[in-house]
Formats: sequence, C-alpha cells, structure tokens
Amino acid sequence: MPELKVSAIREGTVIDHIPAGKGLKVIEILKLGKLSNGGAVLLAINVPSKKLGRKDIVKVEGKFLSEEEVNKIALVAPTATVNIIRDYEVVEKFKVEIPDVIEGILRCANPNCITHYEYVTTKFYVISREPLKVRCHYCERTMEEEEILANL
Amino acid sequence: MPELKVSAIREGTVIDHIPAGKGLKVIEILKLGKLSNGGAVLLAINVPSKKLGRKDIVKVEGKFLSEEEVNKIALVAPTATVNIIRDYEVVEKFKVEIPDVIEGILRCANPNCITHYEYVTTKFYVISREPLKVRCHYCERTMEEEEILANL
Repeated sequence: MPELKVSAIREGTVIDHIPAGKGLKVIEILKLGKLSNGGAVLLAINVPSKKLGRKDIVKVEGKFLSEEEVNKIALVAPTATVNIIRDYEVVEKFKVEIPDVIEGILRCANPNCITHYEYVTTKFYVISREPLKVRCHYCERTMEEEEILANL
Repeated sequence: MPELKVSAIREGTVIDHIPAGKGLKVIEILKLGKLSNGGAVLLAINVPSKKLGRKDIVKVEGKFLSEEEVNKIALVAPTATVNIIRDYEVVEKFKVEIPDVIEGILRCANPNCITHYEYVTTKFYVISREPLKVRCHYCERTMEEEEILANL
C-alpha cells in the first residue's frame, strides 16, 4: 500500500503538541504551504496524544524558527513544544510561552488605531492567557482569541 | 527523536501525486483542517517524487471521497492519483480526471451571472486542460486557473 514515508529529518524543527485543528494555522503563519527552499513539510492533523487526547504536529525540514515565529506559534498553539533537530538528533526542546508583552507580530483590530497610520511597532499587553486576551498599548482595544488569530 | 508516526491506515483515502504546493488547497476543499469524526489527516508538502520531482500527499483516515470531491481535486491537482484503502489494502486506485463539463462545484466569477441570482446549478465547459480554462454555460465568462481555484 502507498505509505507516507516519514523518515527522520536531518536538520529542522518538529512542533509537537499543537491543539487539534490548529496545525493548519501554524502552517499558515510560518508560510509553509509553498516552500521554495526544497525542504519537505509534514502536517499531521488530529493524531492521538496521551497529553491532549488529539493533537496536530508540524515537521519542517531544513528550517529553524526565529523568536518572532516561536511567539506567533505560542499565540496559536500555547501547548506546543518545539524540538530542534540537528544531525538526526534533538539538540534542543522547549515549550512555547506566551510572552507578557507582544511586540510587532500582531496587528491591532481597531481600524482607527494609530499603528495603522504611523510607522510604529505594534505592542500589546497579555491580560489573560486562558482564554487568551491582549490589550493594545496605543488604543487600549482588547482582542480575544478569534481576533488575535485573524490578525497574526 | 520525536518521529511522526505514520502507520498504515485501516480505512481511508490516500491522494498521491498532488503538484507540490497544492496539498493545502486539497485540505481546504475537502474541509480536513478540523475533523469532527476523529480520523487523522496527514499532509506532506514538497516531498521527493520520481514522477513529479516534488509532490504533496494527503492521507485521510476513515474518509472516502464523493464524485464531487474527486472532481474538485482534479481541478486543483490534475496529476493526482486516489488510492482507496480498506482493511489496510489498496482496493482501488485511479487517476483523477478533469471532466468535460463541470456542474455544481464551481461558482462563476462574474458577479452579474444569473447563477448568483436564480436557483440554478452552475455549469462550465472545459475549453482547455493545460492551462486549465473553463467557460460558463450561462454568461460565457471564461475563467482561468487562479479564478477557478478561488471559486471552488
């Protein structure tokens, strides 16, 4: 039968423990749908997990994440763990963490917010992690999960 | 190291030989991003292929495709082959085919087309397969690949 060959990757990143159904959003924010660098990407949706019941997994060949990318993933998938693979070995493993202050990676949902008109880096304070809620430093608009995901 | 376990599926569908970069669109048109039935879904992007150089693969546990779904896949991924798995065996394998006439699965890109105002099933004639081009039976608007993908 045609099996999906999922060999170990030599260099790259495995993002594990993504809440089931959020893996596609991770692919989207990391812009992995169409790779030009030749690396393979694997997305597993709704696979069994001891911790979470069901989970999604994203595996990216030849790519390492920037701090900004890790922070974006934290907002989408706060339970995620990141495994960095070099020479077929996990050389680093960490849980993502939603920072107290989010700078530059999120747009404000308020169309009148000054961040849309002036050249300033957006800045939000995390006022709740579960459920996720942030407040804009500039216009004080609060945003909840759905709005946050739409503005990443 | 954390491997993606991709065990053989007992029942389901493997869509192979999807052009590299089109797998996400297949996930989208089959609405596989968030499954409620408990089956797992695997998307492999940009994996090596003898036939295509690079390809995408979609593997869906516990789901079989309707004719309409197969026709949609043909429009997105004309090179795709569909493998139907039952009891761990491939019981059927076929190449998707773009039909001569496409009924009901595509919206017309012309906002003034009668199909947006009257209760009629859309109907398009395939006038070219490569590059893909179709013509609306009602308003004669021609649509090319990008517009077709946006209106599936």
